Amino acid sequence: MSEQTLIQKYFSRHNAVCENIEVSVGDDAAIVCPSSKKKLVVTTDTLNVGIHFYPDCKPEYIGHKSLAVNLSDIAAMGAKPLWATLSLSLPDINHDWLKMFSNGFYALADQYNLKLIGGDMVKGPLSVTIQIIGSIEANQELLRSNCEIDDLLYVTGYLGDAAFGLKLLQNNNHVDVHSNDKEYFLNRLNLPNPRLDIANNINSYAHAAIDISDGFIIDLQRMLTASNKGAEISLDKIPISTSMKKIIKNEDDMKELLTGGEDYELIFSISENDKNKLEAYSENEKIMLTEVGKIVKGSQISLTNNGIHTDIPQFKGFDHF
Amino acid sequence: MSEQTLIQKYFSRHNAVCENIEVSVGDDAAIVCPSSKKKLVVTTDTLNVGIHFYPDCKPEYIGHKSLAVNLSDIAAMGAKPLWATLSLSLPDINHDWLKMFSNGFYALADQYNLKLIGGDMVKGPLSVTIQIIGSIEANQELLRSNCEIDDLLYVTGYLGDAAFGLKLLQNNNHVDVHSNDKEYFLNRLNLPNPRLDIANNINSYAHAAIDISDGFIIDLQRMLTASNKGAEISLDKIPISTSMKKIIKNEDDMKELLTGGEDYELIFSISENDKNKLEAYSENEKIMLTEVGKIVKGSQISLTNNGIHTDIPQFKGFDHF
Repeated sequence: MSEQTLIQKYFSRHNAVCENIEVSVGDDAAIVCPSSKKKLVVTTDTLNVGIHFYPDCKPEYIGHKSLAVNLSDIAAMGAKPLWATLSLSLPDINHDWLKMFSNGFYALADQYNLKLIGGDMVKGPLSVTIQIIGSIEANQELLRSNCEIDDLLYVTGYLGDAAFGLKLLQNNNHVDVHSNDKEYFLNRLNLPNPRLDIANNINSYAHAAIDISDGFIIDLQRMLTASNKGAEISLDKIPISTSMKKIIKNEDDMKELLTGGEDYELIFSISENDKNKLEAYSENEKIMLTEVGKIVKGSQISLTNNGIHTDIPQFKGFDHF
Repeated sequence: MSEQTLIQKYFSRHNAVCENIEVSVGDDAAIVCPSSKKKLVVTTDTLNVGIHFYPDCKPEYIGHKSLAVNLSDIAAMGAKPLWATLSLSLPDINHDWLKMFSNGFYALADQYNLKLIGGDMVKGPLSVTIQIIGSIEANQELLRSNCEIDDLLYVTGYLGDAAFGLKLLQNNNHVDVHSNDKEYFLNRLNLPNPRLDIANNINSYAHAAIDISDGFIIDLQRMLTASNKGAEISLDKIPISTSMKKIIKNEDDMKELLTGGEDYELIFSISENDKNKLEAYSENEKIMLTEVGKIVKGSQISLTNNGIHTDIPQFKGFDHF
């Protein structure tokens, strides 16, 4: 079956004429018409079999997650997603696989009105590369470099769940976890929820943001380095899910939440003046946002647990090489 | 060494502040400011080791070619390239390889003032995915679907050289080829020259275009299908390089030029009224453009050789699955 037929069959759901898309999947390239008043935000990420997911990972999960990690980068900029391209390497044609992969991809894309406008299918080891173009209004971008002294640091959601899900996959006989909790952890690993709604709510006043893909410590350190600032973090304030509370036994377990990676939550900083506004939003919308520390002079992270200094973990998070 | 350090070392040459780039490599995503009067053109292509290039292919060639195949798609739309993202899968860190790859990439990018604004480096089998965003003014897009009856069909450059280069790589002991010619064929395979200059000259009056990546016949057929038209092609008019003239012995050899793929030349159609304008441009700029046939009613390609009907080849070109 030809590449074109496969693309037509599985990846042309968004080909209907649409206000800002002139040519979608099917020509040498797509043509889109951006709004003249907005800037564009561009990101790309690749997921490889054996590195980012196991060979037996459900295709729906791969479709969802490969898009989610890119949407998470768009969220970390405070932007809205518009258009995506998808490059798919496949060892062979498996129609069931393609159907399930595309279902996972489109379910998440449709949730954010993101349109797939082009791509490529090639032979090779299973690998998914997605590029997203989003839009942002002037002065709403959340750069890593914009932290200011005395900013409050927040994280979205709960930390460490996805990394624990990965641990469960690696050691399937873990005895201490109830099946409901296991399902929760695995869902957090396989179906991360990009924080676009939050990002688009706070982007008019938040200063800086980064998404936690490699681990809280390593990603926060990247934001601090870009901002040329330090941070004080309270380990005791790190948000822990109900399922995770049953696992955590001591301070070392708590620290592990900061280095596991795969959270796809956001770290962001706001001025103390905006604290009430943010917490009212959090309460009204029932969105989990937790103040975990603040920006200070310096270049490092200093960690306390209930007010007492504690070392940051030796292993700080994942880096790709 | 961290992904960030590697990216900083090898892929941040375009990070200087630039009129339409607000944030380049280094944040969660790039921020760019498109011109309000233009539409954007978006394309992506992946090259995999063992499929699109041999494991011992020079890194400069991989850097050049992975960008060239994407620029060729931008040319086939009549657009100008602006910004690229690069996703690179590598089995391990090899600094020499990265240096040579990035040299090949940047040399071609700089030729067209294309800026690398973001990307991703991950562990995995060697694979390169590039996305390009280009721009185009209203009514200058060269769609596959715009062929009109009686349009003249042109191709750029010479056909079949790159495919013959691939044959030489596969059968290194080919005795009939002079070393100069061998070098020419291999360069045509390894260092394709995207036809951006031509595309941007003809885009105000040409009707339709497609680039020849998989083979003249299969790519022309794609354009005809999109346009719901047929074409008459004169095999005897197909442009042949000086080196190729020494190889061609008979009609079957001629037909092979139409199916080899990897040409990265353009097929485009113009109204007969614009023939003089096009040929004056070709002559003034010493650019090889050859009229090879015309658009007719129907849906198929009909082939003649010196006025006598001949069958189109059974094997029509490469398809990826």
